[in-house]
Amino acid sequence: MGDFTLLAAVSLLSAFQQSHFAWLVGRSRMKHKIMPPAVTGAPEFDRTFRAQQNCAEFYPIFMTLLWITGWFFNQEVAAVLGLLYMFARYKYFHGYAQSVKGRLTGFYLSLIVLTCLVTLGAAGIVNSFLDEYLNFRIMKKLRKMF
Amino acid sequence: MGDFTLLAAVSLLSAFQQSHFAWLVGRSRMKHKIMPPAVTGAPEFDRTFRAQQNCAEFYPIFMTLLWITGWFFNQEVAAVLGLLYMFARYKYFHGYAQSVKGRLTGFYLSLIVLTCLVTLGAAGIVNSFLDEYLNFRIMKKLRKMF
Amino acid sequence: MGDFTLLAAVSLLSAFQQSHFAWLVGRSRMKHKIMPPAVTGAPEFDRTFRAQQNCAEFYPIFMTLLWITGWFFNQEVAAVLGLLYMFARYKYFHGYAQSVKGRLTGFYLSLIVLTCLVTLGAAGIVNSFLDEYLNFRIMKKLRKMF
Repeated sequence: MGDFTLLAAVSLLSAFQQSHFAWLVGRSRMKHKIMPPAVTGAPEFDRTFRAQQNCAEFYPIFMTLLWITGWFFNQEVAAVLGLLYMFARYKYFHGYAQSVKGRLTGFYLSLIVLTCLVTLGAAGIVNSFLDEYLNFRIMKKLRKMF
Repeated sequence: MGDFTLLAAVSLLSAFQQSHFAWLVGRSRMKHKIMPPAVTGAPEFDRTFRAQQNCAEFYPIFMTLLWITGWFFNQEVAAVLGLLYMFARYKYFHGYAQSVKGRLTGFYLSLIVLTCLVTLGAAGIVNSFLDEYLNFRIMKKLRKMF
Repeated sequence: MGDFTLLAAVSLLSAFQQSHFAWLVGRSRMKHKIMPPAVTGAPEFDRTFRAQQNCAEFYPIFMTLLWITGWFFNQEVAAVLGLLYMFARYKYFHGYAQSVKGRLTGFYLSLIVLTCLVTLGAAGIVNSFLDEYLNFRIMKKLRKMF
């Protein structure tokens, strides 16, 4: 299983980060005395909650793209982009908790990272398709020729 | 990695679709001038937001079932069901954005696809268990006999 | 594919559980006559909805940790922890639907399980890194010595 240890390490760290965000929402809940199941009540809590919700929505998208890019393009590149994504989400979450405008830097950075992952993953998949189908045809043609 | 290129391709497309839905929520936010972190304010925005939330909730369920069915049953069948699920979610999202009733067709279709994936995935897993444990016993018995 | 059939079986069951929670929210919606896209209106519905939302947020985190621990530590241990997590979420969901305090037992149990998965998964990954890099160096040194 050593061939995707880096992807697993980044995934574990990011799962931990997601849990940490959820824990910070709980702490903000206690600070502002907002009893569950309410999810609004104080502007700071509302922003913290929304920040965590957005991170949670994008988490499975991020995981999917990280592993596909790691498998079909390059594991090291995917892992570095994964760490960059975690940094972007860190900036986003804490920026958003402070102010509505504070979320923008982290959010745009996270979009850039996701765009890189989609592009490289797509390149890897297209390459894998070409390998599978073109090689096959080339082999067939070569056999016919000789 | 060529042995699950199709699953990866469908996953990448669906990750892109999920991001697209999130982007459409942002556009609806701007159209109706609803400032984050608010998530209500105009009926059309409320529906669009709820549609995207529902898609996001089901996305990891879909990913899990797609890959299990692709691995344990058949990759091509899983990929076709995956594309059908994406179509169902497209219908659901845009139908819901227009009216509350508009979500139903896409939603029911998506449930049918998920039911197919669960059933075929379960069949594949049961088969894999039988293979692992029955083969083993049959081999043992055969060795005792000769 | 028989080498992670147990992980796949637990994943399939938990995907089914998640869908079941979503279905129970729909039933509660009908019982309390709360028309979509509204997500509040009756205390019992609010709790049921919040319970399902929390389960959905943690689902991709759980999936990631389950597979990493299964791959890098031990599949059987990961599968047992996975079943325990499903039980914790069952307690959490139905407890929360009944009362706000009712969610606590299940929630704390689910956190304990996630902590176990993170710890064992991290141990497995560290071990895999040491294997890859230390073995390599030890092999190199041994070659130089003889």
